[in-house]
Amino acid sequence: MTSAAYDVLGIGNAIVDILAHAEDDFLKAHGLDKGAMALVDADRAAELYAKVGPAVECSGGSAANTIAGLASLGGRGAFIGKVADDQLGGVFRHDIQALGIAFETKPATDSAPTATSLVLVSPDAERTMQTYLGACVELGPDDIDEDMVGAAAVTYLEGYLWDPPAAKEAFLKASAIAHAKGRKVSLSLSDAFCVERHRGDFLELIAGHVDILFANEDEIISLYQADEFDAALQAVRGHCDIVALTRGPKGSVVLAGDEVHVVDADLVARLVDTTGAGDAYAAGFLFGLSKGDAMARCAHIGNVAAGEVIQHLGARPDRPLKELVQAKLGNA
Amino acid sequence: MTSAAYDVLGIGNAIVDILAHAEDDFLKAHGLDKGAMALVDADRAAELYAKVGPAVECSGGSAANTIAGLASLGGRGAFIGKVADDQLGGVFRHDIQALGIAFETKPATDSAPTATSLVLVSPDAERTMQTYLGACVELGPDDIDEDMVGAAAVTYLEGYLWDPPAAKEAFLKASAIAHAKGRKVSLSLSDAFCVERHRGDFLELIAGHVDILFANEDEIISLYQADEFDAALQAVRGHCDIVALTRGPKGSVVLAGDEVHVVDADLVARLVDTTGAGDAYAAGFLFGLSKGDAMARCAHIGNVAAGEVIQHLGARPDRPLKELVQAKLGNA
Repeated sequence: MTSAAYDVLGIGNAIVDILAHAEDDFLKAHGLDKGAMALVDADRAAELYAKVGPAVECSGGSAANTIAGLASLGGRGAFIGKVADDQLGGVFRHDIQALGIAFETKPATDSAPTATSLVLVSPDAERTMQTYLGACVELGPDDIDEDMVGAAAVTYLEGYLWDPPAAKEAFLKASAIAHAKGRKVSLSLSDAFCVERHRGDFLELIAGHVDILFANEDEIISLYQADEFDAALQAVRGHCDIVALTRGPKGSVVLAGDEVHVVDADLVARLVDTTGAGDAYAAGFLFGLSKGDAMARCAHIGNVAAGEVIQHLGARPDRPLKELVQAKLGNA
Repeated sequence: MTSAAYDVLGIGNAIVDILAHAEDDFLKAHGLDKGAMALVDADRAAELYAKVGPAVECSGGSAANTIAGLASLGGRGAFIGKVADDQLGGVFRHDIQALGIAFETKPATDSAPTATSLVLVSPDAERTMQTYLGACVELGPDDIDEDMVGAAAVTYLEGYLWDPPAAKEAFLKASAIAHAKGRKVSLSLSDAFCVERHRGDFLELIAGHVDILFANEDEIISLYQADEFDAALQAVRGHCDIVALTRGPKGSVVLAGDEVHVVDADLVARLVDTTGAGDAYAAGFLFGLSKGDAMARCAHIGNVAAGEVIQHLGARPDRPLKELVQAKLGNA
């Protein structure tokens, strides 16, 4: 096996986030599940957008956020995802390439516009997302570049990819290539409702195809239809080489072979917007892994990265994570 | 004269800001004048955008920011400005209408795209802007709605309007209508380089057409080619009913007939990005004026509004200014 040109290749939905503040009453009045990601069509997206206050646009997308975080830590990242050939597609492309990330997926032409996610941030910093997949439904197996997958130590896939039908095939193709080339496959479960939609597929994947699994408490409980966190933890043990389970302010639990680590969160002074917290944790964890760090340090780097993004509006780091990790954790 | 349906009608360039962090070395290397607004063509805009790091998109435009601030204070605002019929035009329209502002200007079709301003924020929070006017050059006298101007107690114009050629005529038409209807005309000088470009026109305007003038220290010094602030202050005295001169952390000076007020700034804990500080000051000042407040209170409201927008990235308020003014200044 040749040495990897990329630490992590992310494959995911290429989305521009539209961030607006919203009171909980607004969520209730419009039947929105607080904390969840719901898929909406173009009309519903336009209807909700018209009802929210002034917004800010930032590049988003779960796996894309993770690769952005990895690059901000100093890691070598690549991304595959589908934008349209429009202004917001240009914004997404700029923001990912500006971090030095390899992004060569051809934009869709004559397609729906670039995907947007209306991210409603509650006063308690929880976020609720309404995603219009737009051009993301055009992502398919042909977009998976075999050389790029082969050149990445880890191929990282978001569970949300299970929503657009052709992306699932892209996902499986990438996973097969990665393993054939002796590389690792990582999956993030993305969202508890997403797990509800695709539970059977995810269980099968985790049993047979995933080396490194990321999930938050709600997602892992949903996956195993467990009553509580510990029951889900026992259920997932042994299914993947590494399982990193995040629990918000309660920190994270990492399972790796016989090792079990319970690592405290990096508590922050000013909680503003939790969008992207899980994505940033995965970025930090995978970055540590690429350096051969011990499991607990991987989790700590994940915590520092997540701690940064929840202190401001938007899912991607606002300042270089590399310096922050150096200041908080020092060298390994 | 009938009572006004709008407290302020703003007329200005309809712009979406692209905000990115940049070190001073970057500004120097690319020959950018720190703190200034420079006009660039599409190629130069694309070239610079490709060189900056990840960015965030927010609606901007000087007069538009002022009307957004006014609305956030609880004032009744209207806006005239030209976007294209594209995604960023939709973003601009959403953000202004979401604040309850009347915005009925027809978008340009088959035109250049919606204007963007690449706003580079330095570590010291100063901002440097590279503006591509795009569809703004399509704004002309036909876009000035006589009824809307007549319905506004104050018509507020940004000096930047002098840059796109047809907008100047729109500006003069609006000013003539406002005065014919017994309304007030207000002008913001916008930028010292903008004053350089249009000094003769601005001096003539101020002498004959402007009732309420806003300028910062650099702009008023440039206008009168003065050696220092006090000399410029003496030069402008008596030319308009009200002159409000802002000086950043040194506060503002207000001239109104015989009255002269020197009002301290609202010093903030966390200076992040000065983009929109002057626009927000004008918003607060004009809001106070609409309520019949004393000059010093108008300046204080301006200071509170400016103090809010410089504490975060982006030129528009991130939380309702109405509540902030109530908390800081109480009722008049």
